[in-house]
This record gives sequence, structure tokens and C-alpha cells, in this order.
Amino acid sequence: MRKVLWFLTTSPMFAALMPMPSTVVPASGALRIDSSFAVQARGYSDARLERAMRRLVDRVSRQTGIGIRGGKTALWIECAARGPEYPALGENESYRMDVTEEGARISAATVTGALRGMETFAEWIELGSQGFEARAVHIEDAPRFPWRGLMLDVARHWMPVGVILRNLDAMAAVKLNVFHWHLSDDQAFRIESRRFPRLQQLGSDGHFYTQDEVRRVVEYARDRGVRVIPELDMPGHTTSWFVGYPELASAPGPYQIERNWGIFQPTMDPSRERTYAFLDELIGEMAALFPDPYFHVGGDEVNASEWTQSTAIQAWAARNGLKDAHAIQGYFNRRVAKILAKHGKTMIGWDEIFDARLDRETAIQSWRGQASLASASRAGYRGLLSFGYYLDHLEPASFHYGVDPLDGPARDLSAGERARILGGEACMWSEYVDSETIDSRVWPSAAAIAERLWSPAGVRDVDSMYDRLESVSRMLDQVGLEHRLNYEAMLERLAGERPADALRVLADASEALGIAGRRNARHYSSLVDLNRFVDAARPESETVRRMERAARRVLAGPDESASEMAELRATLSAWADNDARLAPKDELAGLSKNLSVLGSIGLRTLEYLRLGQAPPQAWTQQQLEAIGEMEKPQAEVRLAAFRPVRILLEGAAQHSTGGNK
Amino acid sequence: MRKVLWFLTTSPMFAALMPMPSTVVPASGALRIDSSFAVQARGYSDARLERAMRRLVDRVSRQTGIGIRGGKTALWIECAARGPEYPALGENESYRMDVTEEGARISAATVTGALRGMETFAEWIELGSQGFEARAVHIEDAPRFPWRGLMLDVARHWMPVGVILRNLDAMAAVKLNVFHWHLSDDQAFRIESRRFPRLQQLGSDGHFYTQDEVRRVVEYARDRGVRVIPELDMPGHTTSWFVGYPELASAPGPYQIERNWGIFQPTMDPSRERTYAFLDELIGEMAALFPDPYFHVGGDEVNASEWTQSTAIQAWAARNGLKDAHAIQGYFNRRVAKILAKHGKTMIGWDEIFDARLDRETAIQSWRGQASLASASRAGYRGLLSFGYYLDHLEPASFHYGVDPLDGPARDLSAGERARILGGEACMWSEYVDSETIDSRVWPSAAAIAERLWSPAGVRDVDSMYDRLESVSRMLDQVGLEHRLNYEAMLERLAGERPADALRVLADASEALGIAGRRNARHYSSLVDLNRFVDAARPESETVRRMERAARRVLAGPDESASEMAELRATLSAWADNDARLAPKDELAGLSKNLSVLGSIGLRTLEYLRLGQAPPQAWTQQQLEAIGEMEKPQAEVRLAAFRPVRILLEGAAQHSTGGNK
Repeated sequence: MRKVLWFLTTSPMFAALMPMPSTVVPASGALRIDSSFAVQARGYSDARLERAMRRLVDRVSRQTGIGIRGGKTALWIECAARGPEYPALGENESYRMDVTEEGARISAATVTGALRGMETFAEWIELGSQGFEARAVHIEDAPRFPWRGLMLDVARHWMPVGVILRNLDAMAAVKLNVFHWHLSDDQAFRIESRRFPRLQQLGSDGHFYTQDEVRRVVEYARDRGVRVIPELDMPGHTTSWFVGYPELASAPGPYQIERNWGIFQPTMDPSRERTYAFLDELIGEMAALFPDPYFHVGGDEVNASEWTQSTAIQAWAARNGLKDAHAIQGYFNRRVAKILAKHGKTMIGWDEIFDARLDRETAIQSWRGQASLASASRAGYRGLLSFGYYLDHLEPASFHYGVDPLDGPARDLSAGERARILGGEACMWSEYVDSETIDSRVWPSAAAIAERLWSPAGVRDVDSMYDRLESVSRMLDQVGLEHRLNYEAMLERLAGERPADALRVLADASEALGIAGRRNARHYSSLVDLNRFVDAARPESETVRRMERAARRVLAGPDESASEMAELRATLSAWADNDARLAPKDELAGLSKNLSVLGSIGLRTLEYLRLGQAPPQAWTQQQLEAIGEMEKPQAEVRLAAFRPVRILLEGAAQHSTGGNK
Repeated sequence: MRKVLWFLTTSPMFAALMPMPSTVVPASGALRIDSSFAVQARGYSDARLERAMRRLVDRVSRQTGIGIRGGKTALWIECAARGPEYPALGENESYRMDVTEEGARISAATVTGALRGMETFAEWIELGSQGFEARAVHIEDAPRFPWRGLMLDVARHWMPVGVILRNLDAMAAVKLNVFHWHLSDDQAFRIESRRFPRLQQLGSDGHFYTQDEVRRVVEYARDRGVRVIPELDMPGHTTSWFVGYPELASAPGPYQIERNWGIFQPTMDPSRERTYAFLDELIGEMAALFPDPYFHVGGDEVNASEWTQSTAIQAWAARNGLKDAHAIQGYFNRRVAKILAKHGKTMIGWDEIFDARLDRETAIQSWRGQASLASASRAGYRGLLSFGYYLDHLEPASFHYGVDPLDGPARDLSAGERARILGGEACMWSEYVDSETIDSRVWPSAAAIAERLWSPAGVRDVDSMYDRLESVSRMLDQVGLEHRLNYEAMLERLAGERPADALRVLADASEALGIAGRRNARHYSSLVDLNRFVDAARPESETVRRMERAARRVLAGPDESASEMAELRATLSAWADNDARLAPKDELAGLSKNLSVLGSIGLRTLEYLRLGQAPPQAWTQQQLEAIGEMEKPQAEVRLAAFRPVRILLEGAAQHSTGGNK
């Protein structure tokens, strides 16, 4: 009996399941989780699986606060075979999970499938009335797309290895399976080369990953069923390479590490053989560190001005019939693809590398959108979507959730063409994040993208997604992320002598702007500290989202919404009183005042609702205008609090239209 | 010019200084802290000092969020000489610190003094209007007592080595200098013995420190100027030893690890030479691991029943003229003291070991009080106070702060006798804490005890202490403690599907009971998980303390207390609405209802105050009675929220006595 219970996804039963499995069939009863909890394999097992089972026990202990001493196998892992030793594109990741009152069983064809199932098991544990338990259920699950990635830019801001490891844990928790490591850019070259040591020595301010650390990351990821794809961006975005090796560049140099953000002129010289000889040696060295067959060469945003300004390059291009910069880049890519092939690697790059003369195995990662992706697919190339998954834009999770690799222009593709669309990757560029803030910009939003890429296409209910996202966000905290921890720490640091909880009330009601809102707000560079209010504030406010929902429910039927009414009143009161408590004299002065005004408007509106009166139209109009002003960002932050207050106001006005004046 | 500015201790200027230095002379101007910040030694330096300077830079970076790249020495460390290689009792810990707009200087006679000064420097950094800064100041500082300790019981609940390390960091931050490691008890033997491996193998459930870990802890502590004193409690509290070595016991056994709390019968056999031969070998092995000259032998709470029930022991006692259990323990201690001396160690033990026939070097740690301490001192022994510093009682910090080793009976001692009182130790027994909750029961209270033991006796202002304690609590979070982190995590785990922030409102208004309130509340043992609300709740509520202060200020002059009024109204509103949001059906139902009632009473009272009316006497009386009921603990938790509400009510009633009725 196969039963897909979409309609249940809005029930609290599924509180923490993300991504949502393909099939969930609840049964009655529950398995108690107590200190005797133990996990055991039957069938195939190996060291990777054993480590994962130990991690699961630790995690259950952390989730529940139960001192697990083991002794009674509550969960059996039935794994048929090892599967690929290193996680492979398209490997079997499916699993089944059965929970009864007597025990639980995860069955999978491969170790990777078992890993995925164990993440589901951990998420499935909840606090019941008798203590922690896993409710009886039958789950069948497999991913929709085989490539579900997260890209982290470690060049623009340095991310110590601990950041990478904790993000790998988080990725595994939401079943993402590709870590795309953007290792070089104009601002830094972040991986140790022993053949060309000046790359990291002069190109990284001393912040780079040693080869031992790289091996550790690769092994850590493998343990969690995650592939690691390195990216060395070329031929543009390469200023940092030229500090130590100016002979690679199209202009004479000298070069310095780039401190600013943007697209810069330094570009590799495609006309000299020594460039390719260098890349051959470097890629050979790097290829040995990364077991995955794919190697990312970037290829985006090439500024051709050094090429056009060089008479030597122009003459070479003319000799070779390369009529423009695009043709030159095409030539460069074909040479690099050959080098990659020599070292057993397949090329992947951004849209710009797309060129009908590349090998068909080449994969295109699209930051431009589904149309670009569809063209590549029609031309026979594999593709990944990243357009719509740019986390540095700080869009709401619902925005990313609504983007599907197979939507729009991809709908017209044939089945074969669609099969070449392998999945997608969430991307975090690091102009406006550092090691302290990156987690809070990647997570929990990336979990919504993970669901889009793993779960059946029909899983689209935004309210359900947000409900589960809140639980997932807490779960990710237990897994080791610092997105919530650092929020608190940064606010307290900023509070100084002011009451930290009042600053938190303001931050909880605010949303940080993404790259578009910050780029021109002041002069940013890699030397500017990211420790202001905007850096602490989250991209999306959980508080405000809950308020919006509560406001809608109160408007729908005030009699059955006592707890929502209480929540609205409590939060609006806190807002109304907050400016008197916080009284900021700095860039937050305006935001703080506005929040208190919003609180007062909201309370007043609630009072009208309670009395069953519509507010006077003129008053409503005046408040709506005031709110309109408050929507405008200040200090690179948007006061999200205006949203529920507007809902209340507009609702109250409609509630008894034509009423008292 | 020497100027002791006590009166300034209530000013926000000293926000985070704890313990308060002996002399603080503020000057004008401030040293900016920016990315060029660097620390450099001039004069004596060594690896220990260099490591401390690197830690300081890391900490400043964490405190400020500034990406420190160095380049300009802002802080010079002038250290005259190394001082003792291993931290020594009575070593020179003094330092001076001078900060001007141009730079800062710490001068000290020893490396340990420099370490103390660097902690003060980190605390002194604050957020000014222009960014982070250290205000110009001249500080002279030295400790009042040479022995300022923290004891952690790692036997009753296992504390992994990470718990110890982070607590050492916290100790160093508040200038505590002795870590007393309670390594064995009835419930476990927690240190690896290679000569007698069954001690840890059969006596610890596999949770013990390897000798490598012990060396690491000792070295980590040395780096921070902290001595490590091991305690092997004997001849009572030794059940865990007898599981592997029953021949040491006074009764035939067999023995099992004790799972319950209390005082138990198993006791070492003092009548056989093989007991002393065993201890000689074991202490010899242990002595080599701990460089400190003191070795703690416990000696507390010996239950003599096995001695009195054994005809062999009784006969032996009679032959040796040992007329009672106290005499037998005295004999045992003298033998152990001899063994210790043979291995270069001096004995320290609890009150019970006090016996005029022990060597004068022996130190007595008093859990019984200043009278016991004074007697020991008069008899020529050294002493430490722990009475009043038992953190597992979960008393308010002000209680511990008010206890002084030289108060009460100690006041009548001669100067020489007083000098033998070396200081004190905060103690955390672990019946009701585990590795997740221990930090929140030790800290920040232990910082108040640290101030009592370091700062001049005249530093006693409780309000100032609490103001600074809040800052210190946050600072300790940055140093690596998990007292605040785990509070959030535990509440979220407990919240399940309920709104976590509503559960937090309840927890913020609650205070956990200590050992006296829990002992008989249910059957506790080492097998009972400590993951309930009472375990998450703090010993003392910051929120309530602030509310109490705000209430007093509002009553004192309502016109100048707008921010206090706002704070009261915001928090009381949150309380009033909270039960509708949380609606707990479990053991928290009563607490939650009461909190909302308190919120409503408080809001009503505020309204009377705002109108300048006294509430009707009958109403006031009724509310005070209701509040009286709410003071009673439920679910092992006290609803601290009643305190500010009572202040408001009583104040409002007095405010215009005889007013409107």
C-alpha cells in the first residue's frame, strides 16, 4: 500500500521533517526513546556506517538530553551493500524507514542510503506526552535530483576549516550531497599548492587550507555522503594568483591582492603556452586531492579589457581566428578541458563556459536562469540551476523554495533533455559575510532549497515549509551550526551598556538587506568589519512571520484565536515599549522609534478588533501612510514589523466596511 | 597619587570589571581598538606568556567582531621575570595597568601577574560611541587571598575533558587560581591508574580521564596560572574503588558502583597494612601526574558502621588504643600523610581530618564554617573556607558574596592566625548537574566568590556586583562557557511543538531549586536524566532582578523613570499573555498560570501608579495573599516573578496611604 500524504504536511506531526520524504504513512503507537537506546547494523556494514551510527547516538543524546547508555537495539540498519566507496553522482540514495512500538528499521541498498535514513530518523524523534519518542510510521524516500549542492565562497572572506566542517554536518542533515568549494578569486587563493607555493603564500594573507586540511574535509564529507567539488575560477577572477605569478597575467603587473568587490581587469594570458603548462601542473596537483570526477573552473564574468589592450594577444587571436573575447574564452576552456581530461576530471563551469565545441560531459552551472539551463541541455550538456538560489541576496526562504530547476523554459524540454538537468546548488558569495555570520545567511534557507531538490515536485506548501523550517533551524543548531548562537553573541556585543534583550526585540523585528541593498550603502571592502546591526540581523524574521500568521487568524475568527491574540498583544506591547528601553543614539535611532510606533498602531488596531469596531477611515489611512514610510530600509535593514501591522490594519478596515465614522 | 574609587563601582564605567581591582584611577581619553591591534612583550618573555598574548588577541577579536590584522602595538606587556614555572601558592600575582590614548601597558613582576593583567585588559574594553575602546585609566591590583579555588565533582556525574577546559578558561577570566578536581567518590573513580587499572575499568562505567588527558589539563591550567589539586576521597566515599579491589574494604563485599546519592557504608579497612601499601603505590603514581605540592584526601563524612561491625577492626583498634571512629580516622590520616610526604606532597582535606597530631603544613578545607576554620587556624593549621560557597545549593550570588573567610569567628584571630587562612573554594557537587548544566550552576555565581577572594574586603556593594555580574556572564560566554548556550538549547528541546519563546519567558521568570529542594522531590540517582525544566532554569533570574530594580526606581520617582516604566510594562504584559500562548499541560501548568496572574496584577498596579491612585486596600490585601501562594515552589522551581510584583504592590499601597477607597 503506497500512500503519499501531502495533505498531512501542514500537520505538526511532520514538524521537523525536511526535506519531506516521498511517502509517509503514519501508524498508531510510538517507539519510546530512553537511555537504553542503541543502533545496530544487520547485513552489510563498514567503518563509515559504524561512525555514522555512533554520530546518531550522540545526536539523539543531545536532542533529548538523555544520557544514553545503550543496551537495547531500538534501531536496526539493514544495508544491502556498500555502494560506491566515494559518493557518486546518481548513486542509489533511497531508503525505507519503519517505526513500530517495538523498534525501528532503516533499509537501504547502499551505505549512503542508510545515512540519509538515519538523518530522517533523528528528525523524526519528538517530545511526546510521555517523553521523547518516534511515532510509528512507514517512510519510503529517494531524491528527485541527484545533484543537490551548496557553494561556499571562501575567497572573499576567509572561512576557517571549522566553518566548513559544521556546514558539512548541516548539509548532511538536510540531505544535500555536493559541497562546491569556491577556493580562489581576485581576493584570495585559499588552497596550498606545493608546486606553486607563492599562490597561497602571497595570495591569501596567510589564510589558506593546507593539503592535510583539504584531505580532512574531503574525508569528513565522504563520511556524510557528500561529494566535494573544488573550484579554481579562471581565466578571470584571478588577481590573487598574479601576486605571486604575474607571468600568468595578460598585462605586465605587478599585482596586489584585491580588497574591493566587483569585476576586475586582471585575466590570465590565453595566448602563451606557459599558462597552460602552469595549469597542467597545478590541476594535476589539485586533482590528486579531490576524488570527485568533476572539477570546477569558474569561467564567469571575464573582463576582456586586458585582452583587448594587449597587442600581442590581439595578434595571437587574429592568427588563430578568434574573433572576440567569447571566442578567446572558448579556446581557453577547450585547452583547460583537455588538461582536466588528462588528469581524469570532467569540467564544470558557470554559464559563460557554454560553447558547443566542449565535450558533452561538461556540466554548466547556471546563475542566469532556467532558459540558459534549457539551452545547454538542448545542446546536450548537463546542467545545474543556481539562479534563484543565491543566498547572498538574502531573499526569503519562500522565494528560493519557489524556484524549480524544471520550471519555466525547462518545461518544454524532452524527457531526455530534462534528465540532463542534474539538480541545483545554493550559492553563498562572501562579500558581506564572514566566518561569524555565514551560517546565519546560509541557514535555514538552504534547507528549503534542499527540499526543493530532494522532495517530489508537488511538495510546495509554503506555510508547511515555514513551520518545518523553524524546527529545522533549531535542529541545525544542535548539529553544530552557529547561526543562532552568533546572533545572540553579536547582539550582546553591540548592546554594550544598553539592555541586550531590548536590542534583540529590535533585531527580531528586522531583516538584513542582501548584496543589492548593501553594495552602495557605504564603501565596503575585505578590510571593513562585518560587526554592525545589519550583520547580526537575520535575512528573514521568524517573529514577524509568526505575527503575520497570527494576524490572519485573528482576522479570520477572533473567537477561536485566544493564543494568537495573546501572542500579538505580547509582541506589539514589547515593540511599543521598546524605544523607551533601548533609546539608541546611533544608526538604529530611526528603526527603534518606528518599531515602537508600529507597536502602538498594532495595539490600537487590536483594540478596535476586540470591540468589533472598524477604525475611522481617516485614521486608518494616516497609519497606512506612516507604515509606508517605515518600509524604507535604514542602516541597511528593513523593519519587517510593518507587515503584520499592515495586515491587521487592512483587515480591521475591511472588517466592517462602512462602519462607524 | 593613590586613589581607591569605591564610590565609582556603581557606575557603568566599571561594567565588566570583576573582580574589582584594588585601585582604579580613571583618566580622560580612550585607546581605540581597531584591526591594527597588537600585543607585544618587552622585558622577560617566554612561551607561556606568548601563548597568553595570542589568546588575548583572539579574545579581543571575538569580543569586538573586529578582524584583527595587527601591525601596531597597542598593548605592551612588561614582565620583570618568570616567577615560579608552575603556579605556586603565594606567588606574586600583582600587576599594574596603564591605558592612555596612545597605548596601554601592563607591568608585572611575574608571568602570572601579567596573565592577571591581561584578563583585566580584556574586560576593560567596551563599546564607546566611536567603536570599541579601552578608556584611559591607571590600575593597581593584587589579590587579597592567595588561594582562590573552584572544586568540581566529576564523580557523581561524568564531566568530559572539554567541560574542565572551558571551566579553566572561565576561572582564569575571573582570576581564580586553584582547580580542585574531585576525582573519586562512591559513584566513580575517574582517573586512569596503570598500576591498579580495575579502579577505572570497573569503577567508572568507562568514563574516566586518561593520564594523557590529565597531563593536558594540568598544562592547560598552568598556562592560565591555575594550580590543579587532585582529590581522592578516603577512607569513606570509596565504593567505586572496591568494585575492582574489594580487599581494600572493611567488609567482604562484593561491591557495585553506587547509583544513589547520600552517605554510604563502604569504607577502607584501616587495620591492614595492605591498604597502606596499595595507597602508597597509587599515590606515588598519582603524585607524579600533579606538580602541585598539595594533594587532597577528602576525609569527609566517614560512616563508621563497617568499622564497628567488624570484629577484626574492633580488635585491631583496641590493640592500638583507638577508642572511637574519630581516633581510627586520625590514625588512618597520619599514615596517609606519611605516604604523601614520602611522595613529596602535603595533605589537604575536609574539616573531618582535623587532628592536632597532623603535621602543621596540613591544610583544612572547611565545609562547616568560619568557626571550624578559626579553630584549625588557632591550632596552627592552614585553612580554606568552602562553607557558604557551595554552588550546588543554588543560592543567589549575593548570598555567596556576603560570605567572607575572615568574618565571624575569624575576626578574633591574631594577625598570624589570620594569615593561615589562605582563602576559599567554591564547590560544585554534581548530584543535580551533568555536563550540560554544570556551567549554568557554577557561573556566573562563582565570579562573585572570585571577587570576594581577590578584591579588597571593602568591596561589598551588592548592586554594583550584580550589574557587573551580568556583563561578566556574557563575557564568560565569549570565553567558551556554555551556561547561556545550553539554557537556550534545553528550553528549545523542552518546547517541542510549543512556542519556544513563551517557554523562555516562563524560564526567565523562574529559579531552579538547589539540592535541598530537589533531594526529596522524587527519587534521584545517577541514572535519572537531568533534562527537565528545573534543569534548564537558572539559579537566579536576571530578568526578575532587573524588574525588582525597575520597580524600586518607578516607586521612587515615576517622572524620571520612563525607561524603567517601559521595561516593567513590557515584561508584565509578556507575563500576562504568556499562559494563553504556552498553555502547558504538564508539570508547568501551575507555574505558567501563576506567571500570567502575576503579570496581570503587576499591570493593574502600574496603572494605579500611573494615575497616582492607591489601589483599594482590600484588593491589595487579596493580591498579596494570592502572591503568597505563588511563592511556593512547583516542579522544583520557584517563580521568582512574585518579587517585583510584590514590591510594586506594597509600594503602591504605601504611596498614598489613606488615599481613595
